[in-house]
Amino acid sequence: MKFSSKMERCGLSPMRKFNPYADETKARGIKIYHLNIGQPDILTPDAYFQALRDFSEPVLAYCPSTGVPELLDGVRHYYRGIGVELERRDILPTNGGSEALQMTMAALLDDGDEIVIPEPFYPNYHTSVTLAGATIRPLTTCPEENYHYADRARVEACINEHTRAILITNPGNPTGTVLTREELELMLQIAKEHDLFIIVDEVYREFIYDGQPLTSALQYPEFEQNVIIIDSVSKRFSACGARVGLLISKNKAFMSQALKWCQCRLSGSTADQIAAAALYSLDPSYFDAIRDEYRRRRDAMVRKLRAIPGVIFAEPQGAFYLMAALPIDDADRFQMWLLQHFDDNGETVMFSCGEPFYATPGMGKNEVRMAYVLCQEDLERAMDILAKALVEYNKQH
Amino acid sequence: MKFSSKMERCGLSPMRKFNPYADETKARGIKIYHLNIGQPDILTPDAYFQALRDFSEPVLAYCPSTGVPELLDGVRHYYRGIGVELERRDILPTNGGSEALQMTMAALLDDGDEIVIPEPFYPNYHTSVTLAGATIRPLTTCPEENYHYADRARVEACINEHTRAILITNPGNPTGTVLTREELELMLQIAKEHDLFIIVDEVYREFIYDGQPLTSALQYPEFEQNVIIIDSVSKRFSACGARVGLLISKNKAFMSQALKWCQCRLSGSTADQIAAAALYSLDPSYFDAIRDEYRRRRDAMVRKLRAIPGVIFAEPQGAFYLMAALPIDDADRFQMWLLQHFDDNGETVMFSCGEPFYATPGMGKNEVRMAYVLCQEDLERAMDILAKALVEYNKQH
Repeated sequence: MKFSSKMERCGLSPMRKFNPYADETKARGIKIYHLNIGQPDILTPDAYFQALRDFSEPVLAYCPSTGVPELLDGVRHYYRGIGVELERRDILPTNGGSEALQMTMAALLDDGDEIVIPEPFYPNYHTSVTLAGATIRPLTTCPEENYHYADRARVEACINEHTRAILITNPGNPTGTVLTREELELMLQIAKEHDLFIIVDEVYREFIYDGQPLTSALQYPEFEQNVIIIDSVSKRFSACGARVGLLISKNKAFMSQALKWCQCRLSGSTADQIAAAALYSLDPSYFDAIRDEYRRRRDAMVRKLRAIPGVIFAEPQGAFYLMAALPIDDADRFQMWLLQHFDDNGETVMFSCGEPFYATPGMGKNEVRMAYVLCQEDLERAMDILAKALVEYNKQH
Repeated sequence: MKFSSKMERCGLSPMRKFNPYADETKARGIKIYHLNIGQPDILTPDAYFQALRDFSEPVLAYCPSTGVPELLDGVRHYYRGIGVELERRDILPTNGGSEALQMTMAALLDDGDEIVIPEPFYPNYHTSVTLAGATIRPLTTCPEENYHYADRARVEACINEHTRAILITNPGNPTGTVLTREELELMLQIAKEHDLFIIVDEVYREFIYDGQPLTSALQYPEFEQNVIIIDSVSKRFSACGARVGLLISKNKAFMSQALKWCQCRLSGSTADQIAAAALYSLDPSYFDAIRDEYRRRRDAMVRKLRAIPGVIFAEPQGAFYLMAALPIDDADRFQMWLLQHFDDNGETVMFSCGEPFYATPGMGKNEVRMAYVLCQEDLERAMDILAKALVEYNKQH
């Protein structure tokens, strides 16, 4: 019995593949600082849980394939706050931002098609592109250039007759790069000139640390027919387990293709969508304290990393990740060694290893992505463990 | 800008495509009896809502990609009750049975592959097969033969070098057909002999009305490497809006392919999975009253339909659907007429039109699927409206 060649080309999540080994490490009594996954420790607003408690329909029925109206209106209210007018039909709630990505790839990409994505990129992009039968044309960036990719010549060098779309993440995961207004406009302009969709993953919109305004590609009406937004309540409201994402586009032809997927899976979760609607009634000031907290964490991690010899990285301006090249041969080997052969006073650390963040073979082997989703004290301790581990690992290898 | 040719080949859900017209009908003050969608009116057990109210984690975090352990153990307990021993790793919770289907098709089917499915079938199968790049090889059945398909010669006539799997629904949607023990064994035997996966959609397992025991293809250990079960809490516990489905298989190679999809979309809903776990602690006797209620409804619908001249159907033995050929030219036209030009004392009816339940072109045009998910009185009234409408429609057309 055979499996799909497309599924065979997909891999397991690099954020999760070391979990079985981590379980063994924990079973030996070792504490692990988890920097491998973007699971924030920020409290989920009580409005969410209150809505779950208040749910009082006697029958837990399917909600509309097109989403719970209260959620659609909550999202419209939120976008109005950043200068974007949406109709209900411009929004399709999804099972997390992940499903919004899956249905976008399924709607746009055919066998043999290409999608341009700056690398390093969020590795799950690879799975949804591959399952659609297409491939990623990587636009390679590097920390020495602050992961800069919004350059007309470099972007256009990746576009050919097979290109169907460009996908960017802003703020960036794993790089933390935040596009300037001019850079975002340039990317939108290139997409329009080449008659391409531009998918903009904006799930980290609120997580920006250097005073920039909240940005969306939807703020540029002249490009709205090309723009597809991936959004989610997961990071914004520290509600990852709600699995409420959003696919947003003013392009009606695209939305009617996406609707086929939505109807095929009938609906999203009724209770989660109703509870997520309540999150959108929070005052925007809710984010101020959270932003300050993440800024402190970023600053702490950057300060500690700068003190470790041989580590190369760019200071992230947004999201809550930092990509770093370590003075080692192979991040996978190093991670396995950290779990199986190293501890500092009974403690060790976990990252996401860098290779699956790249489409170019051989790249990212000595890189790791670290999520600064732990409190400052834990982050500093994790960085101290990393510093000691690097010395010890390079002594042994 | 182009869309995927695979997505272009998909259609909107026949259960939902008339919804915009139904909204207009309702706006004119007309009441619609909805027989078009399998949304039960049975109360969801309070255990579900109690678990939502009790949810007390301060951070709504991702649950494991492999599902909440309490849910896995609840499902194991339930299957033990029907003689099937499962390990946690044999089960992957999904976003409804729909996602279990999507990931199964994505894991098994390549471009140019075929999957054998008895027709009429649940139309959303078409979307997930088509998005994987494959096609359905229909095994045509008819009401005059009680939708019988478990016939070696007829099944084997559909198998060729492109065939990767067989998909059956037991009890059947839309036909209500329930396989005998011998028929199920024959289907499993054929799959094994031809080295094929057999996907068995068992989401209606409890809904059987003629005294049969609860059946699962997993009850046959000799075929367990070929069997993939689609299961769900939606119909079983009248919890469609929970979107908690289950992919179950003892085939480890298959499950590790499916896990890639699970990791790509990170996790299912944490609160819904925890609440769904509570449903599995209900006593099996919970189903007795529900089964009696659906049996009464089936009997009422069958009695009423038998009295309408020209209607051809087979009495369903399970699930809560009935497929019927009506004495009309075109079910789509008839449905539109029912919504736009007919009412009986301000009331009309909605079905699912038959054509998308078939892969063979031209079949099903005069057929409809009716879900008996309304109370007996409403069902009887709906059948009376249908009888009057048929007379009136055939007078006018």
